[in-house]
Amino acid sequence: MKAMTIPQTGEPSVLTLADVEQPTPGDHDLLIEVHAAALNPVDTKLRSGKFRAPVTFPLIPGFDVSGRVVAIGNQVTRFRPGDAVFASPSLFKPGAHAEYVLVHEDIAARKPESLSHIEAAAVPLALLTAWELLYDMADIQGGQTVLIHAAAGGVGHLAVQLAQARGGIVIGTASSEDSLALLEELRIDHATNYKTEDVHDRIMSITDGRGCDAVFDLVGAEVFKSSIPLVATRGHLGTIVGIPADADLNPLFLKSASLHAEFMGATAMAGRIPTHQGGILKQAAAMIEAGTLKPHVSKIFPLEDLAAAHELQATGTATGKLVVQIRE
Amino acid sequence: MKAMTIPQTGEPSVLTLADVEQPTPGDHDLLIEVHAAALNPVDTKLRSGKFRAPVTFPLIPGFDVSGRVVAIGNQVTRFRPGDAVFASPSLFKPGAHAEYVLVHEDIAARKPESLSHIEAAAVPLALLTAWELLYDMADIQGGQTVLIHAAAGGVGHLAVQLAQARGGIVIGTASSEDSLALLEELRIDHATNYKTEDVHDRIMSITDGRGCDAVFDLVGAEVFKSSIPLVATRGHLGTIVGIPADADLNPLFLKSASLHAEFMGATAMAGRIPTHQGGILKQAAAMIEAGTLKPHVSKIFPLEDLAAAHELQATGTATGKLVVQIRE
Repeated sequence: MKAMTIPQTGEPSVLTLADVEQPTPGDHDLLIEVHAAALNPVDTKLRSGKFRAPVTFPLIPGFDVSGRVVAIGNQVTRFRPGDAVFASPSLFKPGAHAEYVLVHEDIAARKPESLSHIEAAAVPLALLTAWELLYDMADIQGGQTVLIHAAAGGVGHLAVQLAQARGGIVIGTASSEDSLALLEELRIDHATNYKTEDVHDRIMSITDGRGCDAVFDLVGAEVFKSSIPLVATRGHLGTIVGIPADADLNPLFLKSASLHAEFMGATAMAGRIPTHQGGILKQAAAMIEAGTLKPHVSKIFPLEDLAAAHELQATGTATGKLVVQIRE
Repeated sequence: MKAMTIPQTGEPSVLTLADVEQPTPGDHDLLIEVHAAALNPVDTKLRSGKFRAPVTFPLIPGFDVSGRVVAIGNQVTRFRPGDAVFASPSLFKPGAHAEYVLVHEDIAARKPESLSHIEAAAVPLALLTAWELLYDMADIQGGQTVLIHAAAGGVGHLAVQLAQARGGIVIGTASSEDSLALLEELRIDHATNYKTEDVHDRIMSITDGRGCDAVFDLVGAEVFKSSIPLVATRGHLGTIVGIPADADLNPLFLKSASLHAEFMGATAMAGRIPTHQGGILKQAAAMIEAGTLKPHVSKIFPLEDLAAAHELQATGTATGKLVVQIRE
């Protein structure tokens, strides 16, 4: 089968289209004919050597898939050949920037019928990240003030909608015209342009000086550090990037706050199947069908142009998701 | 009225018994005739100058009270004179190492009838700390493995019982004979003597190498740092002391873990009444009456001997709680 491979770390030009053996499903695997596969920051981190978990090269990237089941393992009970499914394949196995990919049945869910494969591929990894952080870890509640940094990004625009679904008062940061337009389309309560406004002052004005019940840093480093004073007493600070070594966390103690460091690949990294993730995707699919959750795809690339997609993804400026179309 | 005062920071000898004006209740205050008032680490921190929130001297310490309501403010609706109550008075107002103390009605609860004032005074501050950390922040669940460092201490022995009430598999560290005996009396699942055993090896043996779903550091510094590798994937690390500046928190990210920094005085520090705390004490009182929660008092001091109580509290070796008896 055709697959895009990363032979070793380097610039986007290292990405190499190759002919590799089509995989054979293990007992609980689905063999999925890939229709579309989104791009995530983890793709560019793997390619550039910035991914912090151990991996071996060459590897096939691509950790979102929407497609059709074409074969199943002996023990599979939840899906049949022909089913349209979406999933986030394991970060530690061959990915979906290929004609076929294997996915354990417990991490897959039926593709929402109202979405195309292109749209469905935009959901899994980003949605799982947002869901685990906002729902499983911070457990945000109705009426809480929720600040989302990079609110129009791949994880951000789904996090905004999850916060809205819980009844949160949602504040998002963004800077580009496209991103601010997406936040308006999502009817976010407050959008702040971090390039032209003082985010701290804006937050204190919105929250009467209390700060936000939950602050989600989807950017890292300086944004993480500047988020600490924005957290309310007994609030939550979340990151999907990591905790800067030079961040002074003691203000969180005097606020009796919680810090959540979300990594959707943690269970797989520990050698286990993140079986809860199939259930999350099933719930997300129900929200999508009900019209309360909608992914935003800003650009579609053919597999051959994956390097260009990596270039754009690495700028961190794309609105919503970039998706690779593998077949019609 | 008689009150023990801290005129300025210093050794236990600075504690001065003084005659001070009896306070008058504000609109929502209860004037409580203090029968007993426990000691907490915050007392010795305030006295030694190690408390990190801003306070002004002289002050009256003592942030646990069990006693009888003798007068109420105009707007008080939940209590009447004569009621036996227990509470944790605000850290930022005159405390309970005195004949009388004021407490906002929303942070008080009826004293459990099955407890003496001495026993009831051992509960509030430590229980609120354990409850907010284990229930409100980490939200521990049945079947989870829960490690509690200093499990026989003031907060620890209540945390053990809260974890047990949720159905947790509870592991506690301790070292003294008295402390290990208390853990046995509490029927803890596993007790480990950190002076004679390798805690890391013991935890990995108990958890099949996965680590604990929740690790509560009630000690700080090196215990906090050594706790990080003991946290399971998607687990919780809690502290009631603070986050050491030199702790490497990045392993928490690769585990997708949460860090909870509990400070029961945070709401008061932000200038508001921690109204939820009265409700917590009410629930704790119900558990006490039902026999699922029981405070352990290891030593009782008269108010005049508060300096001796500070000396013992500061060693960090006392089992359960030290309580000051103000009147019979």
